[in-house]
Amino acid sequence: MTLPARAQEPGTTTTIHTDGAGAVRRTVLPGGLRIITETMPTVRSAAFGIWSAVGSRDEAPADAGASHYLEHVLFKGTKRRSALEISAAIDAVGGDLNAFTAKEYTCYYARVLDADLPLAVDVVSDMVVASVNRPEDVEAERGVILEEIHMRDDDPGDLIHDEFATALYGDTPLGRPILGTEDSINALSRDRIHGYYRRHYVPSNLVVSVAGNIDHDEVVGLVARAFEPHLTGDAEPAPPRLDGTPVPIDPRRVVIEKDTEQAHIILGGAGVSRTDDRRFALGVLNAALGGGMSSRLFQEIREKRGLAYSVYSYTAQYADSGIFGVYAGCQPAKAEEVLSICRDELDKAVTTGLTAEELERGKGQLRGAMVLGLEDTGSRMSRIGKSELVYESLLPVDEVLARIESVTLDDIRAIAQDILTTPQALTVIGPVSI
Amino acid sequence: MTLPARAQEPGTTTTIHTDGAGAVRRTVLPGGLRIITETMPTVRSAAFGIWSAVGSRDEAPADAGASHYLEHVLFKGTKRRSALEISAAIDAVGGDLNAFTAKEYTCYYARVLDADLPLAVDVVSDMVVASVNRPEDVEAERGVILEEIHMRDDDPGDLIHDEFATALYGDTPLGRPILGTEDSINALSRDRIHGYYRRHYVPSNLVVSVAGNIDHDEVVGLVARAFEPHLTGDAEPAPPRLDGTPVPIDPRRVVIEKDTEQAHIILGGAGVSRTDDRRFALGVLNAALGGGMSSRLFQEIREKRGLAYSVYSYTAQYADSGIFGVYAGCQPAKAEEVLSICRDELDKAVTTGLTAEELERGKGQLRGAMVLGLEDTGSRMSRIGKSELVYESLLPVDEVLARIESVTLDDIRAIAQDILTTPQALTVIGPVSI
Repeated sequence: MTLPARAQEPGTTTTIHTDGAGAVRRTVLPGGLRIITETMPTVRSAAFGIWSAVGSRDEAPADAGASHYLEHVLFKGTKRRSALEISAAIDAVGGDLNAFTAKEYTCYYARVLDADLPLAVDVVSDMVVASVNRPEDVEAERGVILEEIHMRDDDPGDLIHDEFATALYGDTPLGRPILGTEDSINALSRDRIHGYYRRHYVPSNLVVSVAGNIDHDEVVGLVARAFEPHLTGDAEPAPPRLDGTPVPIDPRRVVIEKDTEQAHIILGGAGVSRTDDRRFALGVLNAALGGGMSSRLFQEIREKRGLAYSVYSYTAQYADSGIFGVYAGCQPAKAEEVLSICRDELDKAVTTGLTAEELERGKGQLRGAMVLGLEDTGSRMSRIGKSELVYESLLPVDEVLARIESVTLDDIRAIAQDILTTPQALTVIGPVSI
Repeated sequence: MTLPARAQEPGTTTTIHTDGAGAVRRTVLPGGLRIITETMPTVRSAAFGIWSAVGSRDEAPADAGASHYLEHVLFKGTKRRSALEISAAIDAVGGDLNAFTAKEYTCYYARVLDADLPLAVDVVSDMVVASVNRPEDVEAERGVILEEIHMRDDDPGDLIHDEFATALYGDTPLGRPILGTEDSINALSRDRIHGYYRRHYVPSNLVVSVAGNIDHDEVVGLVARAFEPHLTGDAEPAPPRLDGTPVPIDPRRVVIEKDTEQAHIILGGAGVSRTDDRRFALGVLNAALGGGMSSRLFQEIREKRGLAYSVYSYTAQYADSGIFGVYAGCQPAKAEEVLSICRDELDKAVTTGLTAEELERGKGQLRGAMVLGLEDTGSRMSRIGKSELVYESLLPVDEVLARIESVTLDDIRAIAQDILTTPQALTVIGPVSI
């Protein structure tokens, strides 16, 4: 049973469903703060996360990189804690404290032993609600972000993904890199970062998600105390980012000549959005084309011909758009051959689809990976937190498995024809001129 | 209670100890094959691994890269299965199938749902005992290995670790890269690879380790069937690699001028061997110096001065030697400043040790990370498998925790004086001439 995420009064708790051993529960506090938890009684740990509904696609060109810059600055100190006190608190109990910024959301999380959950709630909530963003800290962190950009630039297997997004979406919020650019980072002032924080980090825009050996009511109490005095007013939780208008794309061909050993290649185009019903069929197609060692691209390019070490296909989903792409790293002199094999395999998928055996194998792959992934508190915390933020409702695991199971060979052919016959972008980094 | 690993007759099973919920059991089969399992009754998955006691340090110069090359070739086909059949079997159930080669061992593993354990045992054992190493497969895989080398070369944050090992250990088995070199890989013939396989992959040189929702006796039965007809004779399990003679080192200073955005730096020297009692003190020292966000190096270089995004210290242990090193990636123009801060911090650790607070925090960090890591079947499989291969006995988790707890400020000062006052190697990749 799924419950529309928004049909709930502030201050009440709903049990959404039970997934295997644990129950998923949801509470909305005054101010519109959502808390979603999943109990896993057989583990001894807990993963605690706070998700903000802001990401790089919310940035005006002048703010490029602000979401990620801010994510860093939130580690630098609160009214009650210095940067050292934040990290020392979690290091002292052997926990993991980290954060990541995506195009459509930002997440701060800690994974700790269950007995240390109150500490994790206190520290992570403090970072998110009481950051001071001191000018000197914003300055110091500017250097760190610039070094993160330089590190990305030094790893072509990483850089190529940012270049590909730009080749597909152009100079738009979805096309620009999450890290920003050297220029945009240098131009961001403390006041602009702080304004961005004040504007976006409000309770109605945040979701707290927790998974592990925890009690929902205890978590709600801890979070309510940690968020004091911000939980006031009758704001509703922010609706998910679902405007339904597909993002127009204008795929380009970009070759970045660089003195690397390998040619790093991504070929791809528009995939499907996060709420598109075809996403399960695309998941199976992706598994069969380039999702594992038995996939067509791996077999043709690596097993049979030994042309690459790393070759895979991947998907990304956004509110109103998505990516399906193929990556390969190979000898520069073999780049044309590798690309031609990739194109052949994509064409074959369009004209003849998959075999019945590949369909079943692809389903088994998605099913097994999903169930294996659910043993980890961090994965469960991510699943429920991200769902709460970006979907109208949380799909129970059994329903996800049923949707995967229901994919047919016709669905595969249809999605292949829909997405692989559209214009494709191509990005290459290396000593080549394709 | 720990039991010396070798005090066991082939064909018998011993319960070594119980770690929390699950028991660790060990059986030696004819031919000297060891099977070690740990039951985790609350999970629904199992991790199955086969460890071989061979790694790159067993290679003569003419065999450089053979252990890793062979690891790849074992995926290419057996008497009963093609490469596609190997990978398709595990993909179909959504499992992870992978392998890695280290300097002193090689491991092949699969993580699957518990019901799929018989399949995993059958497939992984088949790869390890019945590989055919066809000449055409060895040829195709040569290209893959060369691309893996090129990919490593394109990522300076990865390459620097191989360069550092060579700067510390020179042109010796421990100093040479696990991947080999382009020349050594091009020179390795199929017969040489196959001979390496026949020589090293014998039951007495292998350890099977399994963790998860499994039954020891059932695992022994599955493995015995999968290893037929190789389990004959009265060979004893191979003793661990413990010759006790410390490896002589001759640390060098190596600058690789390259047109990268960052200067990638490792400064370090000899650490301690795997059986050295001082390893627990070094673990705490490492945590406090560069093991987390609250560590001295992170605070001084990143938090306060914003000079790096990635900065950390690390340790590696071998049978008779070890490494303690510090990595930082920074602006080339700041490389001298970053190095000077690193040296200051190492000097301070020698002269004044740690504070009582840092000692406690470092212990908490190791303790928490260890306990959190034990929720994962893969980590548990690794712990018991690697222990069986490289130690005289398996240290129970409680004893590891007690050893960490017993570290004193004097122990920290002693280990800092022992290892940080020895000659240090320095490796830099970047547009610098330090």
